[in-house]
Amino acid sequence: MITVLTGGTGGAKFVDGLRQIVPPEELTIIVNTGDDLLWWGLRVSPDLDSIAYMLAGKLSPERGWGVKGDTFFCLQTMGQMGQPTWFHAGDRDLATHIFRTKLLADGKTLSEATREIAASLGIKARILPMSDSWVETRVLTPAGDLSFEEYFVQRWYQDPVESVRFAGASDAEPAPGVTEAIRSADVVLLAPSNPVTSIAPILAVPGIREALHESRAHIAAVSPIVGGAAVTGPAGALMAAQGLAVSIAGVAYFYRDFLDLLVVDSQDADAAEDLRKSGVRVHCTPTIMRRNEDRIALAKSTLDAALQPPAAPAAVERT
Amino acid sequence: MITVLTGGTGGAKFVDGLRQIVPPEELTIIVNTGDDLLWWGLRVSPDLDSIAYMLAGKLSPERGWGVKGDTFFCLQTMGQMGQPTWFHAGDRDLATHIFRTKLLADGKTLSEATREIAASLGIKARILPMSDSWVETRVLTPAGDLSFEEYFVQRWYQDPVESVRFAGASDAEPAPGVTEAIRSADVVLLAPSNPVTSIAPILAVPGIREALHESRAHIAAVSPIVGGAAVTGPAGALMAAQGLAVSIAGVAYFYRDFLDLLVVDSQDADAAEDLRKSGVRVHCTPTIMRRNEDRIALAKSTLDAALQPPAAPAAVERT
Repeated sequence: MITVLTGGTGGAKFVDGLRQIVPPEELTIIVNTGDDLLWWGLRVSPDLDSIAYMLAGKLSPERGWGVKGDTFFCLQTMGQMGQPTWFHAGDRDLATHIFRTKLLADGKTLSEATREIAASLGIKARILPMSDSWVETRVLTPAGDLSFEEYFVQRWYQDPVESVRFAGASDAEPAPGVTEAIRSADVVLLAPSNPVTSIAPILAVPGIREALHESRAHIAAVSPIVGGAAVTGPAGALMAAQGLAVSIAGVAYFYRDFLDLLVVDSQDADAAEDLRKSGVRVHCTPTIMRRNEDRIALAKSTLDAALQPPAAPAAVERT
Repeated sequence: MITVLTGGTGGAKFVDGLRQIVPPEELTIIVNTGDDLLWWGLRVSPDLDSIAYMLAGKLSPERGWGVKGDTFFCLQTMGQMGQPTWFHAGDRDLATHIFRTKLLADGKTLSEATREIAASLGIKARILPMSDSWVETRVLTPAGDLSFEEYFVQRWYQDPVESVRFAGASDAEPAPGVTEAIRSADVVLLAPSNPVTSIAPILAVPGIREALHESRAHIAAVSPIVGGAAVTGPAGALMAAQGLAVSIAGVAYFYRDFLDLLVVDSQDADAAEDLRKSGVRVHCTPTIMRRNEDRIALAKSTLDAALQPPAAPAAVERT
């Protein structure tokens, strides 16, 4: 059994690789919901949607979010009516948002809504939101206290980041099945997602970090930092704002209390060597996912490395 | 000042004629909301939308409902997700439904939401829902107790109608401005809408019929029945189900307690003559609105006839 913690577009690509090599019934995907927003009054869960669309083969490959070949006529009309349009909900994408909003209004939890949406898309892997409670990633900048989507989508992550917090997290509970999926897994994988705004919100839900500590699973993370910078998006700036090194060492440090293995890109081989000296198990492999083959290869290589027992010499070197 | 009571597609066409001959600030349109429905959890007001789209020049001329040139990609996707699709909400049309639903969720009344939607579409005439309360036209048939849209759109008005009721009407109040617009108008016009399911729900809201009785306005109705049958839709079947004659006499009888003038189609000239004998003021003019010119001509002819004092000879004949 494999459990993945993920958020964002890098995470969705990684999950796409995994779904091609692992039977869906062995796959549980725990998804960040700190980016969730009310858009035009509709409940939008960008990371849940990206994973669902990816698993259903509907994710737009060009954009990395939303539905393949989608149109934006409702959005356009909203704009003509003077409503905000910075969050690009497509016409086909809207079906998911409307359906989710209705399920929640009918009294369903986000987990239940997620299960119904996944079933309606024919998805067999298990998708779990990190929590059924409202947890909101807030990014404090000189321009104000922004939601993640305001910071990321509306303002193109150009604002200097003073701090990041997860409003509501301390009162939240993990969604049903989340801690069990971490505890009972053979392997727990942290996708190459933004540590600060995709993975940290998940870890901020009380009980999830404890489950990682107590799990007997091999826990591996794929570094979203390659050659001292984020592959895409604001992970670098956000890590720096948290006082972390923007490097594979920074990633390893961020996950230090539960991580068994860090998977880093081949171009970080030298940095990996340094990291190994400080006792971290590191696996080098190409991590940039341009083509489908890259995704499959990274998933395979990560799984193999995670399942391999730590090499004895490394332990010897450490003494 | 002109106040119109309307619902449905015939009503929207009539209003289209009026808007071309009357300055918008002199026009108040009171709209049936008995057809309102929750569709995918969104609040849809079909008759309010038809009037708003018509006044904004956006109503689809082919369909008579929805937005000109609209697409249905969200609907299609909903269908793929196993959700109902019999109510055809287009992608551009959805913007209105989502916006209205958000305004209501934010605590606005339907009147306020209607005003905001109208303003966002650049509409200057005043559109008022009949009530801010939920009033639902229910059609009892052998197939069950149906909402109007279930009876009309989902089941193509093929079920025999046993009775029609307006659930919630007795507890409803007229929306702000409705009775004032009736009392203070120079002319009140009942559009050639279905008397039973477009006009009767308006009249069922306590206070509106009283306002018509007490108004000093000239009150004229345009008959939706021509040559003993409805021009479009189920008005004939619904009138028959109410024990009314499917004729201009049936229409006159339905509105007998407040009507000053019935406008009927030229092809009903003989029936009009009979009706005049029973003391009803009747004006004959072409009422079928195929082209834009027809709409303008009907609006003009109706207004002129309504504003004309009753001819003395008719009063003499009646004695």
